Amino acid sequence: MITLFFAAGDDNWNQYEGPLILALEKAKISATILTKSPANPETVDYIIYAPVAGALTDFTPYRNVRAVLSLWAGVEKLAPNKTLRQPLCRMVDPGLTEGMVEYVVGHVLRQHLGIDRYIINPNHDWVQKCPPLARERSVGIMGLGTLGTAVTTALRALNFNLSAWGRSPKPDLEMPYFHGADGLEALLSRSEILVTLLPDTPDTRGLLNAQTIAYLPYGAALINPGRGTVIDDVALLAALDQGALSHATLDVFHQEPLPKTHRFWQHPKVTVTPHIAADTRPLTSSRVVVENIRRDQAGLALLHQVDLARGY
Amino acid sequence: MITLFFAAGDDNWNQYEGPLILALEKAKISATILTKSPANPETVDYIIYAPVAGALTDFTPYRNVRAVLSLWAGVEKLAPNKTLRQPLCRMVDPGLTEGMVEYVVGHVLRQHLGIDRYIINPNHDWVQKCPPLARERSVGIMGLGTLGTAVTTALRALNFNLSAWGRSPKPDLEMPYFHGADGLEALLSRSEILVTLLPDTPDTRGLLNAQTIAYLPYGAALINPGRGTVIDDVALLAALDQGALSHATLDVFHQEPLPKTHRFWQHPKVTVTPHIAADTRPLTSSRVVVENIRRDQAGLALLHQVDLARGY
Repeated sequence: MITLFFAAGDDNWNQYEGPLILALEKAKISATILTKSPANPETVDYIIYAPVAGALTDFTPYRNVRAVLSLWAGVEKLAPNKTLRQPLCRMVDPGLTEGMVEYVVGHVLRQHLGIDRYIINPNHDWVQKCPPLARERSVGIMGLGTLGTAVTTALRALNFNLSAWGRSPKPDLEMPYFHGADGLEALLSRSEILVTLLPDTPDTRGLLNAQTIAYLPYGAALINPGRGTVIDDVALLAALDQGALSHATLDVFHQEPLPKTHRFWQHPKVTVTPHIAADTRPLTSSRVVVENIRRDQAGLALLHQVDLARGY
Repeated sequence: MITLFFAAGDDNWNQYEGPLILALEKAKISATILTKSPANPETVDYIIYAPVAGALTDFTPYRNVRAVLSLWAGVEKLAPNKTLRQPLCRMVDPGLTEGMVEYVVGHVLRQHLGIDRYIINPNHDWVQKCPPLARERSVGIMGLGTLGTAVTTALRALNFNLSAWGRSPKPDLEMPYFHGADGLEALLSRSEILVTLLPDTPDTRGLLNAQTIAYLPYGAALINPGRGTVIDDVALLAALDQGALSHATLDVFHQEPLPKTHRFWQHPKVTVTPHIAADTRPLTSSRVVVENIRRDQAGLALLHQVDLARGY
């Protein structure tokens, strides 16, 4: 019998109770699940975590915890916590990945086809201008983790002309790939549509700023379903105002919900989506959490463990 | 030396002259190309045709023509022409197919993700409601010709829950398939998003009318990049007004350009695109035309020949 502490808030518990118990039964794991901070923290074996309001911040008393299992893919709020000395695992949920692929492909095609001009067409213009084919459209992907890789597979199936950028060298990719600070200009300068799927780390904060946005081709479109901190909002708004960028579709922001007074809301070249690109699904993500518990109990390595120094 | 009559109008000639001559040279075919009705019609070997204003209507004098090669995929204006006794070939252009796939996948994802509510969001609402995954979304495809088949391949790669309908039985499909009048209700009743890619024939005219539209699930969305005549416009508008359908994206109409006074232009639940879903591309379609000439000259069967009785 193991003890789990579900430290992800009451709202999540309402959604996760059924799927989590089901997944534990299927894995034949006998567990007690606590939903409040226990009187004896040392009895807890695993913490299931999400950074909700009032979330756990001091992990010190949980000295026998074998792993902290995040329900979120992004762990930037948790990774810097100095009291966290236990292994931390990110959520890599197949449902989340599929949702992200659908969001990105949908918004890339929206920009590629120029769909907005037909949705908002007050003069009822009949102008027969065909877009180029996808094979003639350059799309750049920043961040080739689980999500970025799945996105490139889906966009490649539609013939888009892809390039990618990441922190480190990657061999044997089916597209031009650039890495590190030196590779940034090469990627940006060939991206008519840019998709950013980078984690929030000290290295990525403000990576898209006045200098780097200027590398993009004139009239490029930006889609950011990754993390809001990657973008310097003032520089982005200036590029949109000047026409250097044609559009930005943003799902993530420095502050969420996006404050009512933020210029993004009013800007005619900005589409705000409310952090919905990829949602963790209780059914599939409960299976991921339980699989990690099963592996650890069987003496196998944890999946999706975070490198705390790197931050993802 | 063969003689071609380019009977597709001056605007098309401006686009096709270069690609067509290039494709003939590559195929080592020596040809004279006429762009006006010749004094001696019996000298013409092949007619390259598009139904432009003032187009050829009497094919009788072209008694030595071996084939009429359409630049358009849809041949509903030409097929009923009683003077046409020569073989007629439709355009099946890989560029056209790719463009159609991109249009359909883009608009299916737009409906699936509910993108419009973020493009037009005057109250700046931050409402975190995730759409279902594509695997939980039922999409019906009417018409499984070259275009419909390519569309299903692309939508399947995104995990959509597909069904299809066509005129005739088809074995061995990777999805539920219904055919003929008897199969219409079964297909429509399971289509949250319906894509119509049917040709214009006596059998398809008005196929989507008050009775059949009522088979669709409440709140279904329609996407029609096929032919406008398939839809009874009055019945479609009534279903949108009543809320039975949530949206219609229409690329083709009974009359084109869509008259300025048509209710589709003003309707908040209708998106009009100006017959741009799939455009014949001069470069790729010139190759298709020339390949058919080459085959015929070599004694091989013509590709994409139309069954004039069936009309496609």
